This record gives sequence, structure tokens and C-alpha cells, in this order.
Amino acid sequence: MKVLKSLLLGMCVALCACTSQTSTVQTNDKGTQWEWKNGTIIVKTPERPAGQQSVIGLTAPKMEVVRVGFVGLGMRGPGAVERFTHIPGTQIVALCDYEQSRAEGCQKYLQKASLPKAAVYSGEKGYEELCKRDDIDLVYIATDWLHHFPVAMFAMENGKHVAIEVPSAMNLQECWDLINMSEKTRKHCMILENCCYDWFEMNTLNMAQQGVFGEVIRGQGAYIHELSPFWDHYWKNGENDKLGWRLDYNKKHRGDVYATHGLGPVAQAFDIHRGDRMVTLVAMDTKSVVGKDLVEKRTGEKCDDFRNGDHTTTLIRTANGKVIEIQHNVMTPQPYNRLYQLTGTKGFANKYPIQGYALDAKQLSVSGVEPQVDNLNTHSFLPKEEMKALVEKFQHPILKKYGEMAKEVGGHGGMDFIMDSRLVYCLQNGLPLDLDVYDLAEWCCLAELGELSMDNNCAAVEFPDFTRGEWNVIKGYKFAYASPEEEKETMDKAKAFTSKLKEKGAEDWK
Amino acid sequence: MKVLKSLLLGMCVALCACTSQTSTVQTNDKGTQWEWKNGTIIVKTPERPAGQQSVIGLTAPKMEVVRVGFVGLGMRGPGAVERFTHIPGTQIVALCDYEQSRAEGCQKYLQKASLPKAAVYSGEKGYEELCKRDDIDLVYIATDWLHHFPVAMFAMENGKHVAIEVPSAMNLQECWDLINMSEKTRKHCMILENCCYDWFEMNTLNMAQQGVFGEVIRGQGAYIHELSPFWDHYWKNGENDKLGWRLDYNKKHRGDVYATHGLGPVAQAFDIHRGDRMVTLVAMDTKSVVGKDLVEKRTGEKCDDFRNGDHTTTLIRTANGKVIEIQHNVMTPQPYNRLYQLTGTKGFANKYPIQGYALDAKQLSVSGVEPQVDNLNTHSFLPKEEMKALVEKFQHPILKKYGEMAKEVGGHGGMDFIMDSRLVYCLQNGLPLDLDVYDLAEWCCLAELGELSMDNNCAAVEFPDFTRGEWNVIKGYKFAYASPEEEKETMDKAKAFTSKLKEKGAEDWK
Repeated sequence: MKVLKSLLLGMCVALCACTSQTSTVQTNDKGTQWEWKNGTIIVKTPERPAGQQSVIGLTAPKMEVVRVGFVGLGMRGPGAVERFTHIPGTQIVALCDYEQSRAEGCQKYLQKASLPKAAVYSGEKGYEELCKRDDIDLVYIATDWLHHFPVAMFAMENGKHVAIEVPSAMNLQECWDLINMSEKTRKHCMILENCCYDWFEMNTLNMAQQGVFGEVIRGQGAYIHELSPFWDHYWKNGENDKLGWRLDYNKKHRGDVYATHGLGPVAQAFDIHRGDRMVTLVAMDTKSVVGKDLVEKRTGEKCDDFRNGDHTTTLIRTANGKVIEIQHNVMTPQPYNRLYQLTGTKGFANKYPIQGYALDAKQLSVSGVEPQVDNLNTHSFLPKEEMKALVEKFQHPILKKYGEMAKEVGGHGGMDFIMDSRLVYCLQNGLPLDLDVYDLAEWCCLAELGELSMDNNCAAVEFPDFTRGEWNVIKGYKFAYASPEEEKETMDKAKAFTSKLKEKGAEDWK
Repeated sequence: MKVLKSLLLGMCVALCACTSQTSTVQTNDKGTQWEWKNGTIIVKTPERPAGQQSVIGLTAPKMEVVRVGFVGLGMRGPGAVERFTHIPGTQIVALCDYEQSRAEGCQKYLQKASLPKAAVYSGEKGYEELCKRDDIDLVYIATDWLHHFPVAMFAMENGKHVAIEVPSAMNLQECWDLINMSEKTRKHCMILENCCYDWFEMNTLNMAQQGVFGEVIRGQGAYIHELSPFWDHYWKNGENDKLGWRLDYNKKHRGDVYATHGLGPVAQAFDIHRGDRMVTLVAMDTKSVVGKDLVEKRTGEKCDDFRNGDHTTTLIRTANGKVIEIQHNVMTPQPYNRLYQLTGTKGFANKYPIQGYALDAKQLSVSGVEPQVDNLNTHSFLPKEEMKALVEKFQHPILKKYGEMAKEVGGHGGMDFIMDSRLVYCLQNGLPLDLDVYDLAEWCCLAELGELSMDNNCAAVEFPDFTRGEWNVIKGYKFAYASPEEEKETMDKAKAFTSKLKEKGAEDWK
């Protein structure tokens, strides 16, 4: 009897241990809960807190004037300030940077444009004062990566819309917190993904949406950009900081930490959470050779824990059976390459190293462009004239509107200005923004999901559904437009406002 | 007591079920045994049967004359026969094809070269008679994919070396059987991977091996070739065969079924089983849209079971922390692309769509080429003159030797002839072949390993070790060369033989 009881007890323990092995919830170093399910890593989708609703299609009331506060004026910020001085119906109310001199330094753009001086904030908590102002609609965030999230949260908590430089969230928790905050406060939370606004990408998106390539079943993107000339330009936190915040971040984090330039344009072409969604991810990285060496040269010490592999590749499968590939390499020497490419059942688009489209005579003709040459086939890219005709026919309306001015104002060839212009246009006209907080989460989550994959020998990882069930509500990615009449009215008011503002500004600068 | 005993019994059963769930060996439809281990699929490496030894570095005694039997004279075979008529010291003894007319049709190449008529074999088992001949050294196999394996096995069983068109093995079982047969019989079993012999690939391999790119940490390859003009040219097995063997094979099999053109050249640059080995694989495919449509158009019936996704991507991580990416797409329209690319810590090589190398001034100079221009950096590919100088300096000795003649004889621009020439050279000089049976297995196993991955939601799959522990014995991939004296002696004998043979042949054709 005693023996039997001991045996029974032993078996109970064994059975418990056994079943718990097959269904243990694990938690990573960022607090994300996950578990194995038949060889796939499932990341929990947290319940939507009570009192929140989806912000798909979120609009705010029209704003005659978009009043902006800029936080983060190091590498990207000053360019944004300068660009906004060219956008009518805006008011640059406040400038903030950890370093006062960098904030003050941006006043020169206001002076140049004859706009009034902005208020200046600085120091570690300067942004809090800026966010509490009652005369700001939008906080434009271009801080270092680690401050994107806290500044955005504080701004939305204080009733401000936010636009955040990339990567806009550094991990899953930040993604969910931004989503919850946006849903709770009903404030826009936009990812400032400029690559969505580049010429080839916008025209190609337009072509894809109109079936020029048939059904697009595969896409790729990347951030391949050797950063060796730049590492030392990222702000260093005092004398003991030998690396600068960006190299330090790469050292500490595995995974594609900078996926959005590559993924953004492709996600739009794939109608992500507008009819399709990303379901499965696998990631694979090389060892770190160059990264490790960069640290060793700067610190003079051996570095065996450089987490970010020199080259990371991420594969994603969608609900509709499509595949997206995203690569990341900021270490090894090679020409810049965002790898943008769409593979369709009837045609093909490629951007690097040469821009080209492959369509046969029939498909070109069906797309409304008559081939000038015989034997047009898809063994080669379209000849110059055919490509020109195709691009002209499918030029994106947004490029038609902003393209010329964008080339003058500049910013990565103009795409930055188009992005900022669209943001202001949508706010002024009370429209949904081009990019919502779910895009932000979907594009920024590759870092942590990829790390999860690779720390588990490149296991498959299931994406959480950031829309919590609404990824198939909107059918097809669209840009929002006001009617021509509304547009004109808004623009007239905007121009009038800016005229007056410049008169006032001229006074400031006498 | 009874209750306790029942409870105990129940727990035993539960415990058994539980433990067997966590460590069950599964068997797929090809008989491959595998099991889960922490989210990775482990494929068993079978024990080496007694009486076999590794064939790494295998040599056969010198052959003054290489006597060849060709089996499979449909699409690729006739070109091989024609090429061999240009190689001294060979004798085309026999021609075999399922269809007699196709075998007879190759006699014209012999006639044109004034070589003696070959014996002709045909029908389903014609190859068996050919393989049993005692006057053949090498069986050159260019049948449809399903016959590669049985013909190769029969040939080696009958004491013949074999060279097999790609893909040389269709699944893991065939890989292991070929390895075991080669190890048992000590016969060469070579994969006829012509892309290893293409100009850019050979020169770039030479550069990589001499450190021009620093440490190469990533490589890519692919077979991206829209086959719509070709599907109906593959032999059809009677009137009811609407698809032809190649489309039928793609319909029935998931995974990268044609990986070797992409993987071969990269595997050589990565010293696979010469210091490194492939360890982990993940694969991901798109749905089938074009494939499904091809079948539906040919059969007039709905097709819901087209297994091969239109575009398949495979990622591989090696023991030394490098990554290889291989893609496959024979369906959608786009320019031909083998994606060949090497990413190094100090430089970069790219073949499609434009051939280029990226090296900065310092690395170019270190590699022995003085830049003619200022400001040479890796933002762009080398200018024309620098590239020319680099390629000249690092031209592969094998290209120096065979290149000119190859361009005349032809075959995919000449690489086929270089491949055949090297095969004959190594046999004549008693050297190890450029490619061994382990290369064959490593490059051909992507199909089944990828299918295993994708049928399990893109799980990571661990490669078996085809060398069974010897992947790190040879340090670095090398081509074998005879001494200049030996080469000359062999070549003189070869030429003399062929001269005489042509005299005899002239008689045959009077």
C-alpha cells in the first residue's frame, strides 16, 4: 500500500512535469509571453482593454492650422523643421532637444522662412513641458530610438497627435502600448516611413493596385546601407560612451532593428491589415564580424557579445499565401540597396541596382501602354521608351501633386517632403492618415519577433494580430483625399494663415 | 486497493502517451525519419554501412581514354554528346534513350566529328544493357529527373563512374543511396552542375578564395527562370500525359526542386564540407497561382493540389555562422536570374541584373589592383576599367585554359564545355573530381528538407551530415591539377588516340 502510494505520487509528479513541458508559457527579457505550438512560437495577443476601440480609419476634426512641436533635433529633426517651413497652414510652435544648442540651432530655418521664433525646450525632461502646452496639435518625434516611445506616450497622454521617426517602437510591448494609447486617446500615431513616398515605390504601388503585374505574390525590401561613415555622428552620452546610441543599440539587440524602410512600401502593396495580414515569420542572421570589430576598435577591448548579426534576413508569409522578404545589413561594404521588388503573376518590378519593369507586350497593352518595339517579352526589363510611357500613365496622383516642389525642398531626394505634406494635408482636411498605428506595430515588430525566432534556432514565429480581429475590414490599401472643393478651401485658408504668419515672423527677426 | 491500482494504470498510460508525444519519431511520405527537438526538425543521419569508407578526395587510376555511355538524349543529352566530340582522349561508345530515334539522332554529332558510330540502346531498360558493357568507364546521365537515380545506381553497381545531370537526386533516400553506392563501389558520382563553371562565378570564387572580399559571410543563388516556353517540350508519357514530366514533378512536389544552379557556386565559395557545413534550413513558399493555372489550362480541370509554390525561398545557416539564401521561381514572368552574390566583410560581388564588384580603393589596392580614379568607394560598383583589371588579375586558371575553346564549342555560353573538360581532365589524370557525391547530396537535399520545413509551418530543419563526420577534414575548396609534365603527357596521348579514332571513324561514315 505504501509502495503503491509512493509510486502513484511519483507518477503524479512525472505527469505534471511532462504536461508542463509540453505547454509552458515562457517570457523573454522584454516581458513578452510566448509558447511553443507544434514547432511554431506563438506570441500572445493581449485583450483589448475596456473602453478602447479600434483606430482603423481614425480621423480628427479638420485643422485649419497644424501646430507642431519638434522633439529631437539631432540627425533627422532639423531637416524636418526646415521642410515644414515650406508647408502652408502649419505653425512651428516649439523646438526641443536634450541639447539646448541643437534646439536653438533650428531657429535659423524659421528665420530664413520669415516665420516667428519657436519656444525652446531642452534637457532630459524638456519634452514633457513641450507636450503639456495647449497650443500644439502634433508632436513630431526625431529623437534617438530609445526616446521615441516615452515621448510619444507622453504626448498622446497630453492630447497630442504624434508622428514618430523610425523605428517607431523598439519591441512588442512598446507596439501594444502605443496602440492602446492611440485607441484610448483617439490620437493619431503615425510612423514616419519616408520610403513609402519615394518615386519608384509610389508609381509601382499605383501599378500594382491596378493589376499591371497581375496578382503580386512576393515582395522584398531591405535596409542595406553600410553605416561606417555615420556611427560616430550619433549622439554620445558623455565621455564614457565610446559607441554612440545607434551602434550601442545594434550591439545589444539581435534581429532586424531597422526593418521599416524595406517593409513599409511592400506592406502597402500587400494590403496588410486591409485584406491580408502577416502570419508567420522566420529570421536568420550571420554572425557578427564587422559589428564586433567596430566595437573592439572603439573600446580597445574584446567584444564577444555583439548581438546583431552583420546581415539579417527575415521571411514572412501572409494569410493570403504571399511572401515578403526583408533584409538588414548596416555593416559590410556594398552599394546602398533597399531591395524593393514586387513579383507578380503577370509582371515584375525591381528598383535596385537598376530600376526596371518586366512586362510582355500583351500585359503592357492590357495596362494601357502600346509597345513601340516588336518581341517585347519578360526576359529583359522594358526598354527606355516603354518604361517612360508606363511610368507616365501610372504616375501616382500624390507625386503629381507634390513631386516638383519636393525635388526643390529635398530631403532624401524629396520623399521626406511628400511624407510631411501628406501628413499635414490629412490633418488639415480631417482625413485618415496614410499610415496608422497598426502599420507602425506591424513594421516595427520584426525586431523582436526575429530575435525570438533566431534565439530559438530560427523557429517559425506567429505574428500577433495588432488590429485584434479587424485586419480584413478595409479591403485594399488606399490614400485618403478630400474633394477638390474642400482641398481648395483648406489650401486657401492655409496660405492665408501662413502669409500673415510670415509678416508677424518678419517682426521677430528684425 | 483496486481504485489505487486503476489510478496507477491510468497514470502509466497517460505518462507513456505524454512522453511519446514529446519524442515521437515521424516518417514522411518518402520514408525519411525525423523528430522534433526544441522546435527544430532533426533528420536522422543513418550509420555508415560496414565495409564502406568516405570518398572524400576519391581518385580512380589514370585513364588514357575516357570511354563514355550517354543515357538520356532529350533536352540536355545531345548537347553533351556534341561537346564530347571536341574533347580529346574520349570515346563515345554508346547512346541510349527511351526513344530509339533520339539515340540514333545523336550519331550525327559523331559523323560530323568523324568519330566511329556508337552502339544504340533504347526502351525502358536499354540503359541496363549499356551499363553492363565492359568497355565503358563513365555513364553520363541526362534523363528525366525520375530516372537520374535508378540509372546512376545501376551504372555504379556495374562498375561505372557516373556523372548525373541536375537535380541528381530527388530526395534524401536517393542522396544516401548514391553516397552509399559510391562509397561501396569507390566509383565517382558527380553532379553535373554547370553553373560552377560560368565566367563570373569562377573568377569571383578565385577572388573570394584570395580574400578580395574579406571574409565572405553571406551568399545567394537562385533558379529564377520562367519556363512557360519550355513546359511542353519535356517528354510526355503517352496521350494521357497532358503536363510532361517536369510540370508533373513540380505539381507533385513542394520545396526547391531545382536548387543546385543557385547553390553550387555559393557552396564552393563557402567551403561546404571543406571546413564548413550547412546546419540549419528554413524554407517558405508563396501559394501556387501560375503553376495551378498551367495545369488547369492543360487538363481542363480544376487543380487544387499543385504542391510547388510559385516562388520558394530557402535560408541556410552554416556551422561557421554564415548564411546562404536560395530562391526558386520557374513560374512568374521576369528576367532570368541566378541571384549569384557574395557579401564579404571587405567587399561585395553581384552578378544579376548587372555584373559588378564593390571594393574601396584600399581593398582594391590590397588585392593588387591600383585604382585609376579618385574616391573609389563601395557606394557604387567598380568603374569599367577597375573591374576589367580586377577580373584580369583574378581570372581563374581553369577559364584561362578552357575559356576560348568553350566559347566556340558553346553550351550555355561555354560553361557546359568547361565542366565536361574538367571531368575528363580529372579522370585522365587520376585526380579527384571537382564535385563529389557529398556536394551532390548537399545541393539536392534542399527539396525534401524544404518540404519538411514548409509542411511544418516553416520550421527549422537540421541538415544531416552526409560526410558522417568528415566535413572539416579538407580545409578549403580546391580544384585538383596535375603537374605540367603529367598534363602534357596525358594530353599528348589523348590527342594521339583521338587522331587515330577519327581515322577509323571516317571509315564508318563512308
